This record gives sequence, C-alpha cells and structure tokens, in this order.
Amino acid sequence: MNPIKWNNSFLEILDQTKLPLTEEFIEVNNLEGVISVIRDMNVRGAPAIGFTGIFGVAFIARDYPQTEWEIQIKKLEEARPTAVNLCYEVRRAYELIKNSTEDSFSLFEKVISFVLSEMKQAEVKHKEMANLGEVILKKYVHKDKFKLQTHCNTGRLACGSLGTALGVIEELSRKGQIEKVWVDETRPYLQGSRLTAFELEKLHVEYDIVVEGAASFLMSRGYVDAIFVGADRIAANGDTANKIGTANLAVIAQKYHVPFFVVAPLSSFDLSLATGRDIEIEMRSEKEILEINANQIAPYGARGFNPSFDITSNDLITAIICEKTIVEKPNTLNMKTLLEKYL
Amino acid sequence: MNPIKWNNSFLEILDQTKLPLTEEFIEVNNLEGVISVIRDMNVRGAPAIGFTGIFGVAFIARDYPQTEWEIQIKKLEEARPTAVNLCYEVRRAYELIKNSTEDSFSLFEKVISFVLSEMKQAEVKHKEMANLGEVILKKYVHKDKFKLQTHCNTGRLACGSLGTALGVIEELSRKGQIEKVWVDETRPYLQGSRLTAFELEKLHVEYDIVVEGAASFLMSRGYVDAIFVGADRIAANGDTANKIGTANLAVIAQKYHVPFFVVAPLSSFDLSLATGRDIEIEMRSEKEILEINANQIAPYGARGFNPSFDITSNDLITAIICEKTIVEKPNTLNMKTLLEKYL
Repeated sequence: MNPIKWNNSFLEILDQTKLPLTEEFIEVNNLEGVISVIRDMNVRGAPAIGFTGIFGVAFIARDYPQTEWEIQIKKLEEARPTAVNLCYEVRRAYELIKNSTEDSFSLFEKVISFVLSEMKQAEVKHKEMANLGEVILKKYVHKDKFKLQTHCNTGRLACGSLGTALGVIEELSRKGQIEKVWVDETRPYLQGSRLTAFELEKLHVEYDIVVEGAASFLMSRGYVDAIFVGADRIAANGDTANKIGTANLAVIAQKYHVPFFVVAPLSSFDLSLATGRDIEIEMRSEKEILEINANQIAPYGARGFNPSFDITSNDLITAIICEKTIVEKPNTLNMKTLLEKYL
Repeated sequence: MNPIKWNNSFLEILDQTKLPLTEEFIEVNNLEGVISVIRDMNVRGAPAIGFTGIFGVAFIARDYPQTEWEIQIKKLEEARPTAVNLCYEVRRAYELIKNSTEDSFSLFEKVISFVLSEMKQAEVKHKEMANLGEVILKKYVHKDKFKLQTHCNTGRLACGSLGTALGVIEELSRKGQIEKVWVDETRPYLQGSRLTAFELEKLHVEYDIVVEGAASFLMSRGYVDAIFVGADRIAANGDTANKIGTANLAVIAQKYHVPFFVVAPLSSFDLSLATGRDIEIEMRSEKEILEINANQIAPYGARGFNPSFDITSNDLITAIICEKTIVEKPNTLNMKTLLEKYL
C-alpha cells in the first residue's frame, strides 16, 4: 500500500481524496502535476508531501532552463504553505543541482536517485521512532496491551513508509500489544475515517472510529491509555502545529492525566521559530466544512471558518519523539540541548 | 418556523433529518407515528420531544382501552431513553387522564388543550431564560457585542419555541449585541451545520460554522467571549448531560478562562440523580459516523463507537440558567438551596 510509486519514467500517486472506497493512482510526469497533487491533497502528510516535492525538483531540472529554476522552486514550495517538510526536502534536493554544470537529464537522474534513497532511509528512521515511541509509552503506562487514541493520518499513506504516530501503533500491533485504537474521524477532511481506518483495517488492528467530540467522554472514563499524534511543524520551544483538533485532544488529555505524545521526524522541526505563535496557520476553503463529497450539508449561503492546523503548546506535551531522541516535557532549553547534535 | 404544528385533527412534524436543504412535514395521527418521529430524530431537542410525547398521550387516550394505557405509555417513554423531558411531559399528561372516567374523545381533547397551552407557556419561559442568560453573560463579560460559541441545536427547531442556549443568542441578536456566533457543526448528526446555521441564517445573525476540532484554536486566540449550550439532563450536583462534544468544550473553556453557561428548563433537572455518573448515556448506531447521507465514508467493514451524550462535570460550568434562577458554580448544596422552591 505504497502511496508514492516511481515507475522509472513517471510517478504514480495514490489519490487519497478517493479513499477508502476507491483505489486510484494519478500519473504525474511534470512540475504542474506535482503541484496539483500536493495542493489538492491527493498526496498528503508531511513526509509524503516532501518526497513528492523532490520529484518536483527532478522535473524542474529536466524541463526548465537553469535560469528559471529558482522561480519554479518557489512555486513548488508554495503549493502547501504550512508544510515545512515540503520546503525542507525541496531545498535539499535543489542544493544537489543548483550550481551543477551537468546536463539536465543527468541532474534529473541524480535527484531521482536521491529521493528513492531517501524513501528507503525513511523506513529505517520511522522504525527508530516507533521503537522510541514504545519506550516512552511504557515509561508512562504500565500495561501489556494499550488503548491508544490518534488523530488525522500519520501512517504509510501519509509517509510512503512506516509512519510516525501510526507507525508506533503498527509496530505495537505487530507485537500484539494493542487492545484498541480510537481513531478520530478528523473533520473536516475525515483523514481518520478514510485513511487511518483504512490502514488499521489492512493491519487487522482492533479499532473504533469516534467523532472528535467524544474525546472527553473516552478519557474521563479511562478508555484511553495514551495519545499519539504527528506534527506538521515543531517550534524551538516544542510548540507543535498539527491537524486542527490536535490541541483539543492535548488540553483534554492534560485534564484527565492521559500522556500525550508527538511523533515527528527531525525534518518537521523548525528552530528558527521561537514558539508556536510564529507558525503560520493555513486557512482552507469553507467548502470542506459546508459540503461532504460535493453535497451541501449546511444551508445555502452558510459560512464556515476552516483553520487547517492548530498549535499545541509545549506544556501540554508529555514528550516529543523523533528518529534520534525523545524530548520529555519539551521547552526551549531541553529542545536545544537534546537536538543541537542532530539539527 | 415552528417544527410542531397541530392542525385540529393531526400533527405536522417538520422532518429535521432533511434540513437544511428540504423543508418537509410528516403527518402524525397515532402513537406509532409519534414513537417513530421521536426515535428517528425527525423531531429532536428535549422540549420539542416532550411536546410531541404529550400528543402521543392524547393518541393513547383516543385509540387504546384504558387497561392498555400503562403499557403504551411505557413504550412511548422508551422511544428515546436519554430524554428525561419526554418521560416528564408524558407522565404529567398521563396524570391528567389516568383515573378519569370521561369518554376517550373528551380525554383526547383535554390532553390536546394541555399541550397547546404548554407550548404557549414555553415561549414565555424561554424568554425568561434568555433574559437571565443575558444578565449572567454581562456579569462575566464586559462588552457591548459578544462572540459566542454554541454546540448542537437548541433553538426554535429544538424547542417549538424561542429555545434555550440559542434563545439567549436570538434575544441578544435582536438587541444588536452579537458580534459573531461560532456554530459547532456537531458531528455525527451535524445539528449545528444543518439546524443552528439554518436558524441563524433566518435571523440574519453573523455566524461561522466550525468543526469541533477548532475549539482550542478559537479559544486560545480570544475569539470566544463565552459558550452557551443546552442540556438534556442535569443531576442534583449540576453535572450536565448534553450532546457529545459538550464536555470537550467545557474542558477547553476552563483552560482558556472562557465562561461556560448551560441553559435548560427546570424539566431537564433530575434531582433523583446524585451526579452525572448516574445518567444513562444513549449509545447510537455506528452508521451515524461511518456514513453521511447514506454514503459510506469509512472503509467497508469499519467500526465506530457512538455515544450520543457526554457528561460535563459541575466544576467546569460557570453557571446553569433555568427559567426561574441562575445557579453559579453549581454543586449539590447551592443547586438544592436555589432549586428547592421551584422543583
């Protein structure tokens, strides 16, 4: 179930807007195609967007004169403003070719090799995160089997490899240590119902989809041992931007003393941002709220307000897990101390 | 926009499951029809369910021999287990006829007169609640215009009269004191998007529909001055059962110091329940989560967990407003002291 496939000459992107009932791939063979699948959320999740972005750099190298690269790179980066991972990966790939004098097809092939090797390494990294996630979970929750809640989709569909928060869950399930996964449906885009449930179904993990509104009900009754979420961007003090609704979970978890874990690769850390207040929040179309599958659900003429992300402040986070280390009770000081050797 | 109309010989119930795009009435002329519109949520909201239940008692008096009344009354009460108001109104109406020797048509007419007079009185009561709601809001928030958040639907569609939480908002809007209403879409049944937005649209009030996940985003940025919600049942200590997601809002409101107000008629108070733990929570079909408008949104075979209500514990409630009084910081003692003269 790999959402990004390279077929030697073109890219196949699993159209995640059509899941879970239809599995369709979109063929992408140029920059416009890459921008379109990122902007329209056919591909989603920070790491998968990052990889797709690198393929975009390859197409730029192949299809544009070197004098236009900088402007095309900017267009690519702006396909999804909140996705720091997109900029990070695009810039890394661009560095490889920027000042090169090789012919454009060699540069194209160079970037393609780079992204394929990155995708392999991601699987290894995610496995390391999953191991650290298990370690920190067991430090806080002394059980043999766990009831875990998660938000949005952070698995293979998001990552093109094991995944972050859902990667922890996949690895625990492989060891028979999952009692139940509570899957937030994750309005408005329903990534939980559509994607996370799809992945857990294939993994044969015991799960139930719940509405976001059920969080307090579940936690107040002791139905949740811990929460694992991903992150789109993490500031220097540990404040974390993630799918809208994440901060709700964190506030409620604190109230009911449920450990709250953020799992994210180092590429999501942006230490140039002092706190979450510096993170730009992407506002998306009100249609995502007012319509479902292109059917109007609100009255004609209704208005919606649709921030796509929220900020979970560091005091609500039990620990942040990346591929190299765990930062417990994150703050500016311990984030710096622990991360300066890796970033 | 009255959702319950009596046309001298039959009842017309606005089919709220079809709103906001279609306005259709269901004709009801017997007990089975009443049970069906209550169970299938064509009519909804504690007060409107209560009124509809009384019409059910009238049909029982007309259509069944007196020896079967008790058993039919029980069937009627069980149409919606969490709706204490249904039992309350059904029992009150039943008291009127229970030991009477009048002929069945006279008793039918007696119950009909009773419910029509109740509906008129409700408008008066709700106006009183709206006035008290304004008083308590202005005690906590010193502004000329307010940004209020609400959950589910508690207006005319729910009540057949002004309404509870939305009644406060309607009255404030009439005075030009609403800057913005944040309407929770209220998954899974979307009462906010479908019904509250429909009412606010007709009232020309400035509003935006938001997903439940946006609560922390809104409150952390100071976008919400206060929250008004209704209640399906209130225990002796002030713990409150209301639509799933209400307790989330209350927890998040406490975190961000946003006043949280519950507006409910005395008929929703059940002092035989010591705390919220004694309130039975209705579990509804997982289909409400897995399908939208009969379209499957989750993978085939997916599971959902769908508690319909949650309990907001009294320590999260700034004040409870009923038609007679305001109970600030509710607890067993002050609830008793203030309410014993009214209940």
